[in-house]
Amino acid sequence: MTRLLIVGGSDAGISAGLRAREVAPDVEATLVVADAYPNYSICGIPYHLSGEVPDWRSLAHRSQADLEAAGLELLLCHTARQIDPAARKLTVIDPNGAEMTLAYDTLVVATGATPLRPPIAGLDSLSAAEGVHLLHTMDDTFAMADTLTRRPAERAVIVGAGYIGMEMADALSLRGLAVTVVEALPQVLPTVDPELAALVEAALAGHGVEVVTDTTVTEIRHTGRELHVSGAGGFARSADLVLVVVGVRPDTTLATAAGATIGARGALAVDRRMRTNLPGVYAAGDCVHTYHRVLDADTYLPLGTTAHKQGRVAGENAVGGERTFAGSLGTQVVKIFDLAIARTGLRHHEAAAAGLAPRTVPVTVDDHKAYYPGAQSVHVRITGDTETGRLLGVQMLGAIATGVAKRIDTAAVALYHHMSVEEISDLDLSYTPPLGSPWDVLQAAVQAWA
Amino acid sequence: MTRLLIVGGSDAGISAGLRAREVAPDVEATLVVADAYPNYSICGIPYHLSGEVPDWRSLAHRSQADLEAAGLELLLCHTARQIDPAARKLTVIDPNGAEMTLAYDTLVVATGATPLRPPIAGLDSLSAAEGVHLLHTMDDTFAMADTLTRRPAERAVIVGAGYIGMEMADALSLRGLAVTVVEALPQVLPTVDPELAALVEAALAGHGVEVVTDTTVTEIRHTGRELHVSGAGGFARSADLVLVVVGVRPDTTLATAAGATIGARGALAVDRRMRTNLPGVYAAGDCVHTYHRVLDADTYLPLGTTAHKQGRVAGENAVGGERTFAGSLGTQVVKIFDLAIARTGLRHHEAAAAGLAPRTVPVTVDDHKAYYPGAQSVHVRITGDTETGRLLGVQMLGAIATGVAKRIDTAAVALYHHMSVEEISDLDLSYTPPLGSPWDVLQAAVQAWA
Repeated sequence: MTRLLIVGGSDAGISAGLRAREVAPDVEATLVVADAYPNYSICGIPYHLSGEVPDWRSLAHRSQADLEAAGLELLLCHTARQIDPAARKLTVIDPNGAEMTLAYDTLVVATGATPLRPPIAGLDSLSAAEGVHLLHTMDDTFAMADTLTRRPAERAVIVGAGYIGMEMADALSLRGLAVTVVEALPQVLPTVDPELAALVEAALAGHGVEVVTDTTVTEIRHTGRELHVSGAGGFARSADLVLVVVGVRPDTTLATAAGATIGARGALAVDRRMRTNLPGVYAAGDCVHTYHRVLDADTYLPLGTTAHKQGRVAGENAVGGERTFAGSLGTQVVKIFDLAIARTGLRHHEAAAAGLAPRTVPVTVDDHKAYYPGAQSVHVRITGDTETGRLLGVQMLGAIATGVAKRIDTAAVALYHHMSVEEISDLDLSYTPPLGSPWDVLQAAVQAWA
Repeated sequence: MTRLLIVGGSDAGISAGLRAREVAPDVEATLVVADAYPNYSICGIPYHLSGEVPDWRSLAHRSQADLEAAGLELLLCHTARQIDPAARKLTVIDPNGAEMTLAYDTLVVATGATPLRPPIAGLDSLSAAEGVHLLHTMDDTFAMADTLTRRPAERAVIVGAGYIGMEMADALSLRGLAVTVVEALPQVLPTVDPELAALVEAALAGHGVEVVTDTTVTEIRHTGRELHVSGAGGFARSADLVLVVVGVRPDTTLATAAGATIGARGALAVDRRMRTNLPGVYAAGDCVHTYHRVLDADTYLPLGTTAHKQGRVAGENAVGGERTFAGSLGTQVVKIFDLAIARTGLRHHEAAAAGLAPRTVPVTVDDHKAYYPGAQSVHVRITGDTETGRLLGVQMLGAIATGVAKRIDTAAVALYHHMSVEEISDLDLSYTPPLGSPWDVLQAAVQAWA
């Protein structure tokens, strides 16, 4: 019987544990979870804070009882302190501060990521008590919910216009707050091209969100009842709540202290079996680098979907399996008000940086036959390789009802199989006039590229 | 310079012409079109008759002027009478009844399909004048619109519960008619499994449509102002309008008279270059059999999407190209009231008939994370091969908003690449809680199959 230890109770850790028990029902699988909230949907936090999901307990993918019924032993509120890879032992601190040592045959490190703290004067000395928040854990969520309800906050400044910043702008607006988003880069949602970001900015403005780009926040001050946020170019806003969401970095401390190698962009190095360089130690999720299937190289792409898949591979291999991680395409979608914005594969500059010869073509296509009522535009950007003809990446933006979130998946499967741009037209996709066109949006777009 | 003749002005014919002009801009491309409505969206007819598309002219994919601007010469209201393959000549009858002969270097036969006329007593002697309709052409559409507006009709009986029957039940209900659908088979929508058809029947009932299955209509009588429809088991209904839509058969008369070989299910035999056995004669669309990519064999699948693709291949090859038709998966979707019902690939009995070892598993999955408001069920049926593990087919049913129409495309691309059921879990699909789950609907379903 194998003794499997897993550090981390989020997507990667839970997936590893469940998969290990699935393929090896006699494995002893113990999860060391830093807080009391195993298997919570971190991606769901904005919808609790918006009020759309009133009970935070709903955010659990599975209940603790379900996890235990699946045969996972949970050590909640236990902090993993040290790995001894030679002795195959893990030291943990229990909720009372006592140290204990756990033996393992195999270990999965799923320590996730931690939010970046940008160099803003005042940020380190201010906290949730004054209405200054970072947002990554359920405890962060409770603190922010408290600021929203107890004070209550009326004006919010969100520092950072990435996915979480955008979702929180939507969430806090829905809740009735006046929201300003400040972003150091020239555009919101830097994961898509500026042309699409401009449409997002227009939607934000349409919903009353103030967007300030090209502006680095330099200071947050708390003066009596208010917060004052100031930055480059004379930026100055007062607020009751400041949310700093400028990205994450992999949490690698535990593993690197034990000698684990660092790979792409500061994340733990793993092979496609999710093995670290330490014997018997696997790692998965936001703490590791990610094999990118189009790049055929490692990068850093902390996404829940990837964490699930990597965790599943790590868990299976930790009990003797031989599964290979197929790779990520960076497929992602975000809902911002009524819009869905999605991407998969490489953007132009990413392809160029990898030595490819990309061409990117913008195309706007109706989501269904124009004669049927309610047709709306889908904005597509197709990136292909001019030398090989290979599809490299697709970005899409449209109203939620245009099905962008699922249309991007068609492109993702095509990328998975390294299809050429031209061959996309050969795909047999569904059609009925109220829901599509004989040449689907993606096909119409690739035909424009060709 | 090549002289290309095309017989047929619907999806396959137009696609052939446009593609030929695209790859060989100097080709002389002439289309012989039997009516005055080239490039009309036949699939859109129900939405004109429902009143949702008030102007029938909107149903044109392209205007006549657009087609001519693309370099296509159109001979409208010309009937192709005879092919002389040895002399490479086509005889046509012009609108005045005069015969003329056209020379060609290559010919594309895109004569489409004709509606089946089941052996119902009275059907041949009754016509649109009495409110008895078949529905395939624009002229059929005008006749039916006339019945709907001039009489006006209040009660309709639809004979046949396939795609068109279902869409017309939706359309005529929307228009305020009381609708009865009669089907000889034990279920509506025989293109999907009975379990899904039962959900469609419930939706029809919920919208006040009467569904009578297992009942063959045997007679239609016209008595004064009313029509009487009677059938097996004492079935008898009065109506102002009877629509007979029980399927189509390939219209092969022109080509077979010239010596063309018949292939699968009575359709013209073509190879994957869309060549018939006649020198210089290609054929495409609803008149030909279709290479099925999962079956790796020819079958008959008259679908607009396929007609477009086959026409494109035929047109390119008719001017010297060497394109191969990639094959159909039978991907299709239909909207019936608020439901979308989709399928791709093989159903259980089709796979079994082909000598495969199918297993079909039903799974019901939420379209997005249950905690986010508005989650709805998607009913999925996964058919896989128990011997090879290969995915064979997927059926899905859900509310339109669940994205079934595009989710099926993910499965279609997977089938295109002959993926195994298990490998579907490796696909990097998009996720955000309001629009999906970390394991997408299709992935959750295939995991249940495995």
